Amino acid sequence: MHSALLVPGAFLSPFAVEDAVRRALVEDLGRAGDITSAATIPEGKRAHAKLTARKPGVLAGLACAAEAFRQLDPAIEFRANKRDGDPLQAGDIAAEIAGNASAVLSAERVALNFTTHLSGIATLTAAFVAKVKHTRAKIVCTRKTIPGLRALEKYAVRCGGGMNHRFGLDDAVLIKDNHIAVAGGINAALKAARASVGHLVKVEIEVDSLDQLAEVLKTGGADVALLDNMDTAMLKRAVEMNAGKLALEASGGVNLDTVAAIAETGVDMISVGALTHSAPALDLGLDVEI
Amino acid sequence: MHSALLVPGAFLSPFAVEDAVRRALVEDLGRAGDITSAATIPEGKRAHAKLTARKPGVLAGLACAAEAFRQLDPAIEFRANKRDGDPLQAGDIAAEIAGNASAVLSAERVALNFTTHLSGIATLTAAFVAKVKHTRAKIVCTRKTIPGLRALEKYAVRCGGGMNHRFGLDDAVLIKDNHIAVAGGINAALKAARASVGHLVKVEIEVDSLDQLAEVLKTGGADVALLDNMDTAMLKRAVEMNAGKLALEASGGVNLDTVAAIAETGVDMISVGALTHSAPALDLGLDVEI
Amino acid sequence: MHSALLVPGAFLSPFAVEDAVRRALVEDLGRAGDITSAATIPEGKRAHAKLTARKPGVLAGLACAAEAFRQLDPAIEFRANKRDGDPLQAGDIAAEIAGNASAVLSAERVALNFTTHLSGIATLTAAFVAKVKHTRAKIVCTRKTIPGLRALEKYAVRCGGGMNHRFGLDDAVLIKDNHIAVAGGINAALKAARASVGHLVKVEIEVDSLDQLAEVLKTGGADVALLDNMDTAMLKRAVEMNAGKLALEASGGVNLDTVAAIAETGVDMISVGALTHSAPALDLGLDVEI
Amino acid sequence: MHSALLVPGAFLSPFAVEDAVRRALVEDLGRAGDITSAATIPEGKRAHAKLTARKPGVLAGLACAAEAFRQLDPAIEFRANKRDGDPLQAGDIAAEIAGNASAVLSAERVALNFTTHLSGIATLTAAFVAKVKHTRAKIVCTRKTIPGLRALEKYAVRCGGGMNHRFGLDDAVLIKDNHIAVAGGINAALKAARASVGHLVKVEIEVDSLDQLAEVLKTGGADVALLDNMDTAMLKRAVEMNAGKLALEASGGVNLDTVAAIAETGVDMISVGALTHSAPALDLGLDVEI
Amino acid sequence: MHSALLVPGAFLSPFAVEDAVRRALVEDLGRAGDITSAATIPEGKRAHAKLTARKPGVLAGLACAAEAFRQLDPAIEFRANKRDGDPLQAGDIAAEIAGNASAVLSAERVALNFTTHLSGIATLTAAFVAKVKHTRAKIVCTRKTIPGLRALEKYAVRCGGGMNHRFGLDDAVLIKDNHIAVAGGINAALKAARASVGHLVKVEIEVDSLDQLAEVLKTGGADVALLDNMDTAMLKRAVEMNAGKLALEASGGVNLDTVAAIAETGVDMISVGALTHSAPALDLGLDVEI
Amino acid sequence: MHSALLVPGAFLSPFAVEDAVRRALVEDLGRAGDITSAATIPEGKRAHAKLTARKPGVLAGLACAAEAFRQLDPAIEFRANKRDGDPLQAGDIAAEIAGNASAVLSAERVALNFTTHLSGIATLTAAFVAKVKHTRAKIVCTRKTIPGLRALEKYAVRCGGGMNHRFGLDDAVLIKDNHIAVAGGINAALKAARASVGHLVKVEIEVDSLDQLAEVLKTGGADVALLDNMDTAMLKRAVEMNAGKLALEASGGVNLDTVAAIAETGVDMISVGALTHSAPALDLGLDVEI
Repeated sequence: MHSALLVPGAFLSPFAVEDAVRRALVEDLGRAGDITSAATIPEGKRAHAKLTARKPGVLAGLACAAEAFRQLDPAIEFRANKRDGDPLQAGDIAAEIAGNASAVLSAERVALNFTTHLSGIATLTAAFVAKVKHTRAKIVCTRKTIPGLRALEKYAVRCGGGMNHRFGLDDAVLIKDNHIAVAGGINAALKAARASVGHLVKVEIEVDSLDQLAEVLKTGGADVALLDNMDTAMLKRAVEMNAGKLALEASGGVNLDTVAAIAETGVDMISVGALTHSAPALDLGLDVEI
Repeated sequence: MHSALLVPGAFLSPFAVEDAVRRALVEDLGRAGDITSAATIPEGKRAHAKLTARKPGVLAGLACAAEAFRQLDPAIEFRANKRDGDPLQAGDIAAEIAGNASAVLSAERVALNFTTHLSGIATLTAAFVAKVKHTRAKIVCTRKTIPGLRALEKYAVRCGGGMNHRFGLDDAVLIKDNHIAVAGGINAALKAARASVGHLVKVEIEVDSLDQLAEVLKTGGADVALLDNMDTAMLKRAVEMNAGKLALEASGGVNLDTVAAIAETGVDMISVGALTHSAPALDLGLDVEI
Repeated sequence: MHSALLVPGAFLSPFAVEDAVRRALVEDLGRAGDITSAATIPEGKRAHAKLTARKPGVLAGLACAAEAFRQLDPAIEFRANKRDGDPLQAGDIAAEIAGNASAVLSAERVALNFTTHLSGIATLTAAFVAKVKHTRAKIVCTRKTIPGLRALEKYAVRCGGGMNHRFGLDDAVLIKDNHIAVAGGINAALKAARASVGHLVKVEIEVDSLDQLAEVLKTGGADVALLDNMDTAMLKRAVEMNAGKLALEASGGVNLDTVAAIAETGVDMISVGALTHSAPALDLGLDVEI
Repeated sequence: MHSALLVPGAFLSPFAVEDAVRRALVEDLGRAGDITSAATIPEGKRAHAKLTARKPGVLAGLACAAEAFRQLDPAIEFRANKRDGDPLQAGDIAAEIAGNASAVLSAERVALNFTTHLSGIATLTAAFVAKVKHTRAKIVCTRKTIPGLRALEKYAVRCGGGMNHRFGLDDAVLIKDNHIAVAGGINAALKAARASVGHLVKVEIEVDSLDQLAEVLKTGGADVALLDNMDTAMLKRAVEMNAGKLALEASGGVNLDTVAAIAETGVDMISVGALTHSAPALDLGLDVEI
Repeated sequence: MHSALLVPGAFLSPFAVEDAVRRALVEDLGRAGDITSAATIPEGKRAHAKLTARKPGVLAGLACAAEAFRQLDPAIEFRANKRDGDPLQAGDIAAEIAGNASAVLSAERVALNFTTHLSGIATLTAAFVAKVKHTRAKIVCTRKTIPGLRALEKYAVRCGGGMNHRFGLDDAVLIKDNHIAVAGGINAALKAARASVGHLVKVEIEVDSLDQLAEVLKTGGADVALLDNMDTAMLKRAVEMNAGKLALEASGGVNLDTVAAIAETGVDMISVGALTHSAPALDLGLDVEI
Repeated sequence: MHSALLVPGAFLSPFAVEDAVRRALVEDLGRAGDITSAATIPEGKRAHAKLTARKPGVLAGLACAAEAFRQLDPAIEFRANKRDGDPLQAGDIAAEIAGNASAVLSAERVALNFTTHLSGIATLTAAFVAKVKHTRAKIVCTRKTIPGLRALEKYAVRCGGGMNHRFGLDDAVLIKDNHIAVAGGINAALKAARASVGHLVKVEIEVDSLDQLAEVLKTGGADVALLDNMDTAMLKRAVEMNAGKLALEASGGVNLDTVAAIAETGVDMISVGALTHSAPALDLGLDVEI
């Protein structure tokens, strides 16, 4: 229902938006509601508001903002001037809102908490994406997300031009060192995984050394190798050894200073936990006229 | 129930922990659960794990970690070496966990997502607190929190030595510029607020100028004045004008470079939105032995 | 959204209304729904109904009634002739409802259960308020509410002209005898409380004797003293001792016969648990024409 | 699980208790929890408490009290000296509780809100039952219950010696005047009801006159007749006319002064809305020693 | 709200439909939503679809289908050509849908999962009903339903011309062999049941032999006897013994081959668990034009 | 926690079991609970029960049965003699249960409704698997599941030796005819899909003809081709054309008579909607001794 606000090609379940916004409004309104507005804003008063960028960045989360106002005033007018994924300059007006003044003021903080957080993720993602645009590497997120907001945060990564890794423990196999050790080695772990999962599930395996990568390549059964904490020289050799057989993902030690060099090794994906666990909020504000 | 893990003096509802952790585990396990562990970890296998700091900081969220493991293995052993609010050095082991290997691996990411996020908030708060320890000013958080995690984040601020502002729109009055404008001025807004709320509700009012502060002081009815975006010279004059009558909170333009000077003006509280909306995660890891 | 039905100045979260009504309808409809109406009311039949007072009182809960009908027939017409807080005479029509006959009959009991209960609270509150109108004392409610309906019941107290005490354990400090004993006395308890809570949290302390009150006044740190089970002579002396420093709340032994004398002692608030735990329902009925 | 606390023969779903108690605790603890206890009660402190009657009455709701303490301290000791349905004298100790002091104080109000409300219902029910014990009439409740607590309140009626009417709109047919009018008369309404419902559903029909009762008796298909607002003379004639064919329920104008005379007419049941919508709380308290 | 889609005389709670459909959509959309449609269907694209029978049967569940589309596109047009309970021939178009193409495709499977399952139940029920239409026997369902869908499945039985047995453990008494044994025999069990339940609750008792039936008839207090696993000769003798006193329900060994003979014994009801636990889905499809 | 009851290699989220069982118990207990047991079973009575196969089949759902008893009696003893995936002969005892008699009787139907339904799915799956065991083909399920039970049903397919297809719309791409048409052909649809989804998402595409398969093979970007409604001759040619490049899934017209021939064409997977939408329940019973 919010599809005109979303970045094209990225679906965001209406239930994810509706439920997260409702939970946030309930959290903020508490038992007694907005007691300041109840005391000071006359019934029937209307307000106009502009969702405005205070700093440059990339927009994400407009559907959450619209939903926050709508839940407190179903007759709210929400006009988007931008859509998710659009770049913002300081002063840009992302959306204009008109409706019941109490509803606008009561929903303001929740609307901003979603959009500043998600736009912060989109903005940081876009910075990483810009650093690697001369290469084939894609910037991907991880499962290091803020609890309860995974679907929204993964969507925000898409708004910034990044791609998504697993959404959870159940939609792809990722064999790590502990799994390998317990299963009895790479060969055994890959065989067990292949035997266990269906034909629409991909298998990724973490390797810490080129020897491990060689064993993975020999064994077969993996779709992706996760090259963990390798330096760029080692990554280059991994890319050569691989010769295009597996998709290669680099992780570890990735930041805005190092990402270009990592991308230039020829890996396919670079995963960055900071996109979702450490992105500072983008400064957006709501200019209200009553 | 988690009280031995919490920072003393700060209560955290067991339901807040239980519900947030359950939601996060459900989010991560999805429909099919941890398909990698199911394929590779033999039934009955046990694991030991250490929750270890990779970088220095302040610990917060241990109860969430314990709860994550407990929900997947009620018989888990969780021994805390530290408690929330404790400083951590790189390499410090905050807790040791022993139990079903699948449960440990399946809960790992959720446990870390809580503790790294909340410890990040505590760590950033502690940095601000350290900058003002020579003054009377307290560092306080705002309502600029990640949707759905407010109680946990406000608790994390306490772990870092900060204090809490309102938890929501319903537990205190905060009259802002729009409320003043609509209500017909400071006098009218303060009267309306006092008439509307009960005897256990405090009233704070935002002022942008010393003239406004003077009017607030003359009118009475406020407990706290929020001095918004004033420079330090103006803050000092506000402190003088106030002469101890109201609690004074400074906000706007606060960062680690400016906070000491702001505190030295003599204000009582300095509110910092970044504590909760922009704190980078603290790097904690789980070292697992199976 | 229901703001035109509410008593001015009192905010009632739309989620509180929506959730409580939905829970009540689900409770009443059970698994099979209204089997009597299903058997006897033809599809498409319409009904008109009048929410009518059978006894005099004060109206509260109109938004709940409207919501009950709306949830079973989104196209229902609900016209309010009165609004919450209005006095009702026997025979007064508070609202008129028109819509699908099955929906009207199926929602009738839930709509009445809310309005008769909440109006009962408002009516009893108004009786207490009338007894003290010649004094400065305000009638306030307590946390002795029916489980699950606190926000609605506290709102109903406002409809009757009363004011609200704490909404829960988290929005103000109330130090009672046990807290004092364990903390090591009044001084220690007040210091611990002040150190623990933020600048927007008020502190109330219960005192059973004038000596205790003297100690509270000397110690400082409290905003309100709760004078528990004192007779009127003692209350008067407490008012004198206090000399306007703290807000004073009287509690214990309050009923419609005693409240005026208590108010005349000069206390600021009188708290009455019976407002919410023992108010008889106000007799309202739904006159339906099909 | 609470069966040893319950009145024999009355089942109370463990989920009804667990869910209602959890909702009430969450409502009371809010976002920040019990901030007074957090500030003043040292970690690890233990408390003993006695649930004590301050006034005579009939006990109901012990399982809810036990559950409230248990949810905040799973290791709580709860020893019942009485069980639901037992008469209480002022001073009687219904139960003793020992456990974590913060948990005891934080759960106190919720535990009392359930037991005082439900015991109030049981006590009022017992008063009605006592008035009619020389007759065959049973005292039954109605659907006029506090929203969200129906199952608990109906159970409390059982604790007081009363019996239950319908639990909702779906477990029995009750044809009222509007249903009769729309369906085209008593005959048509009864036929429609019988044709629509299964073989385990009883049919009751409201009659306002003896003519209507005669028609019901002639038509067949009803199990129970609800004699609405008839005086005792009319009730007696109804009992005679009925000659034992249908169960007869009297309603309307029932109070403690009138109920005996109504019962002496020979009706089988007397329904009393006030049992659940207007019962004052029974005064119970918690005496805590820390 | 869905009443025009429902079989007349059978009420289906709007909450039952809304909640079951929402749960199913959330289950299907998961965290990331319909990623195929997001990638391939342009924003704003519209679709027309026809809900078409591929095999003959009886329709049930149209309201669920409508609700599934509506939840993903509130502006969907849903035109029903049939209503629940109608017979379908292969090729019949039960409903036509027009709206947002992504919404139509994303809701398709959920809409079909409800309608094919519920129509399967209606179709199997109708087959049993057809076999006994020359007798007085009614076909009734049991509590052997798919967990979570009981209200919907019982409604589907009604769509097929069957009647409903108990909806749960709480709306009627059914005394089985174990209850009899523990209670101390038929007499004791019936007395205990009658003493325990209200006047609107029917009592059914299972009997395995004619001796038991004789004892039930002699004891009184039962409304219905469940004749369990009796052959037709025995059933006939039970009908004779009963002489119309109790309603008689036959169960055990009922299938489409045996049901007519069972019905011809004169029993009132024949209960068939297979209606809800083993009905194959009816083949319905959605023909979409975009 | 239930891992010892599960089929090895298949993870079933404890939350999926806990939530589905709770919902089912609440559905069955309703408002008043098990009124028959409350009336007839003395407090403290214990029962022993045996979960016994009445017909041969394959067991699935033991964890749900255990959970149902446990939720009504946390101290229940549940000893499994079999585990999920085990074959059952008529008379085999899958598990023995000992505990509170009321709890055993009240949970009986829910425990059976889960195990008979899930074992029915496992049994039907095993029948299909047996027919193709001489081939390389795997039997896979679809999204044609009973609403609300998908995770459990997909697990039951695994118990019967089948494999899982997509769990929802979000964990893999499946491009169908409508997507192809709207996207502008196979090439465009595959490109759009690949560009839109992450590196751990597989792409399957439905083809109705060998020409379409050829185009898919030429285009690249697909991992799996779904050969829809092709006869065995065509399937054989598809297998030849494919030459091992893509995984091939056959669907349409699959039943126990046709599946072997389909498997012999050399396809990799055969998907069967009937496994989950039309499997009759397996006859299991609970033999209770009190």
